[in-house]
Amino acid sequence: MKRIYLDYAATSPVKNEVFEAMKPYFTGGFGNPSSIHWFGRQTRGAIDKARQTVAEFLNCMPEEIIFTSGGTESDNLAIRGIIAKFQNPNDKFQINSKLQIQKSKFKSYPSPLKPHIITSTFEHHAILHTCQDLEKQGLAEVTYIKPDHEGIISIEDIKKAIKLNTVLVSIMYVNNEIGMVQPISEISLLISRYNESRIMYKGGNHNTLFLIPNTRILFHTDAVQAVEYQEMDVKKLGVDMLSLSAHKFGGPKGVGILYIKKGTPISAIQTGGAQEWHKRAGTENVASIIGMAEAVRLLELKTNNEKLKTMELREYFIDQIFEKIPDVMLNGSRERRNPNNVNISFKYIEGEAILLNLDIAGIAASSGSACTSGSLEPSHVLLSIGLKHEDAHGSVRFTLGEKTTKEEIDFTIKKLVEIVKRLRKMSPFGK
Amino acid sequence: MKRIYLDYAATSPVKNEVFEAMKPYFTGGFGNPSSIHWFGRQTRGAIDKARQTVAEFLNCMPEEIIFTSGGTESDNLAIRGIIAKFQNPNDKFQINSKLQIQKSKFKSYPSPLKPHIITSTFEHHAILHTCQDLEKQGLAEVTYIKPDHEGIISIEDIKKAIKLNTVLVSIMYVNNEIGMVQPISEISLLISRYNESRIMYKGGNHNTLFLIPNTRILFHTDAVQAVEYQEMDVKKLGVDMLSLSAHKFGGPKGVGILYIKKGTPISAIQTGGAQEWHKRAGTENVASIIGMAEAVRLLELKTNNEKLKTMELREYFIDQIFEKIPDVMLNGSRERRNPNNVNISFKYIEGEAILLNLDIAGIAASSGSACTSGSLEPSHVLLSIGLKHEDAHGSVRFTLGEKTTKEEIDFTIKKLVEIVKRLRKMSPFGK
Repeated sequence: MKRIYLDYAATSPVKNEVFEAMKPYFTGGFGNPSSIHWFGRQTRGAIDKARQTVAEFLNCMPEEIIFTSGGTESDNLAIRGIIAKFQNPNDKFQINSKLQIQKSKFKSYPSPLKPHIITSTFEHHAILHTCQDLEKQGLAEVTYIKPDHEGIISIEDIKKAIKLNTVLVSIMYVNNEIGMVQPISEISLLISRYNESRIMYKGGNHNTLFLIPNTRILFHTDAVQAVEYQEMDVKKLGVDMLSLSAHKFGGPKGVGILYIKKGTPISAIQTGGAQEWHKRAGTENVASIIGMAEAVRLLELKTNNEKLKTMELREYFIDQIFEKIPDVMLNGSRERRNPNNVNISFKYIEGEAILLNLDIAGIAASSGSACTSGSLEPSHVLLSIGLKHEDAHGSVRFTLGEKTTKEEIDFTIKKLVEIVKRLRKMSPFGK
Repeated sequence: MKRIYLDYAATSPVKNEVFEAMKPYFTGGFGNPSSIHWFGRQTRGAIDKARQTVAEFLNCMPEEIIFTSGGTESDNLAIRGIIAKFQNPNDKFQINSKLQIQKSKFKSYPSPLKPHIITSTFEHHAILHTCQDLEKQGLAEVTYIKPDHEGIISIEDIKKAIKLNTVLVSIMYVNNEIGMVQPISEISLLISRYNESRIMYKGGNHNTLFLIPNTRILFHTDAVQAVEYQEMDVKKLGVDMLSLSAHKFGGPKGVGILYIKKGTPISAIQTGGAQEWHKRAGTENVASIIGMAEAVRLLELKTNNEKLKTMELREYFIDQIFEKIPDVMLNGSRERRNPNNVNISFKYIEGEAILLNLDIAGIAASSGSACTSGSLEPSHVLLSIGLKHEDAHGSVRFTLGEKTTKEEIDFTIKKLVEIVKRLRKMSPFGK
């Protein structure tokens, strides 16, 4: 059976060149990069080169690249690592009268103000559940901003949410379910303006200064879904931290990146050996890091024409659905969408039923993100942009890859038309 | 140049069978195990099978196996995951009058007693630095037990260290530098006896009950260095948690295991998707998990004769060193040593200088663990067992693998004799 894969946002196959690059580091070049002998030096050298490749891609310094076990760890490190700074009395900072950051000499812990995070209601669960966990543990205060009905976060809403104790804003670059591209540069501009003008604050009900570890707000973005099609120059984006996951762009599973701008106050959340400049302990995942760097190199070679091709195919796909299937709705804005994303609500029927039937026809798509597949809850992303429960339940996400063809889309449309018609006939809510 | 690898405790090559088992899961079987379509079901099935293999090896249930990114993450999850339970007011437990564990209805947080951990001074840094980090953050109280001069932790010392608020004991199974096998079953027997008799406690200076999340003490062991030669039946060992790292036994880097006994109260430290029964979020590292399971299968096939062969070679190695090089000292007990470990102090000279010269001769060994290589600090393990700074500095660790031959050992001895003689001639402390 010919199988059609339209779930590239869930994961992608390892590219042949990537696997070839990895091969020498399993049975052969296996040294521990921390070992000082020949075996260790071989892999240390290879990792250094990989880091250089990634740093060039992101336009940063190699020492600003932390290799992690994937996007989820990168997101956790970004959020938990910043908040952990507030837990360590020796690391605590305060604002002094000259607006400089100084280590606090005050011993009046815990700080009267908890650190405050601003994020959105439709982040990936790696961000959402991490923020919720910190709230539950009493370690942070979080504001969750709702996107508008098109799926875009408003700068104005972020501005309104900023408080004296805001230390971190984390907004995803491209939403994983509806593919909406968020205004990252605009958000970072807002934050940097705020940071420049941030007023100093004295007072507090403990007869001491408020203890605030940063005078500036840090900005993190989960760029896991953006990497293949969007600007990835961290200087242009103006972010302090940025998460990536290799398996979303032709690299292996189990490896990711957290870009951390030099000078960002962050604690390791996985402690042990001195790897990754004490920011992430554990023997480096050599083969996977090499593979990820090769996937990054291939990304750099990707032309705008190739990206355009995917977008044209996506437009064709949406047009065909609108033309051939009545009572459908494209979730999120059509214009501000990642080139590979199609998220459609089919009225009167269940997305899960469509997926099952597509699967029988050999077509792989998804409802919501893979991480929550099988859950009966409607997508938190679709609810966030104001969908009714029944419409959220009737949605399907198709995500295209660079190998997706027009023939595959045509076959998918053909099957989709049949399936939707059949299901609607059986549906108690159907027409 | 023929190269001899005697640093198997740092890392080991991926076995051919392991790499063969992994291969289908890169460019081919790449589905996200959380996806419900065909591509996802393929990898889900493969992971289930891998989990079954690991569970049989450890004699536990598949749902007691958590796949992690390596030994360091496993250790972090074990320690931080238990302590995190004390951070979440909703998860807090108290001792009621019938010695049963109940969710607390009291709101008087923070608890007057911090959770207390007992560990040893010569654990791997993944344990030591994690405990120190929790202390710094004010989240736990830690007692570090010193091993005796042979490198064994005394049951009596653990007994003495237990306090009312002790919630976790973490003692490594085999020390990574000197290979000392610790009395894990005896420690778990002590703990289970204590747990049976643990007295309830009422009182406190906040006019409320002391809030203690567990009435029983949990026992974790870092078994990373033990897996190839020691008993691995978690029932026989009596542990609640056990950490493993694949790349130490012929599996790939970047993947590990934490066994968590059913019912152990633990929080995820990496949050996001629902993977691994909500205990470890993030897309499963499919290929590496399959590879690790194959390495486990090969371990099971390993005969006692093969293990004995390594031990005999080790004994021959030690004998030869003692015979041919004066003023040497075997660090740790000779009898209670993992079959593959030789750790020797060479008087009057620096271990690093020996290693450099061995490396030039094509022989890979190490001083201390790979994670701290390059550090000028003497090994914390050797200082723990009472070595003087100069003897700790003069030590070299050789760790044998199943492919190590007598010829390799003979060549190593020959070179070692030459190197030690030459270095001692140059040494200002030399004879």
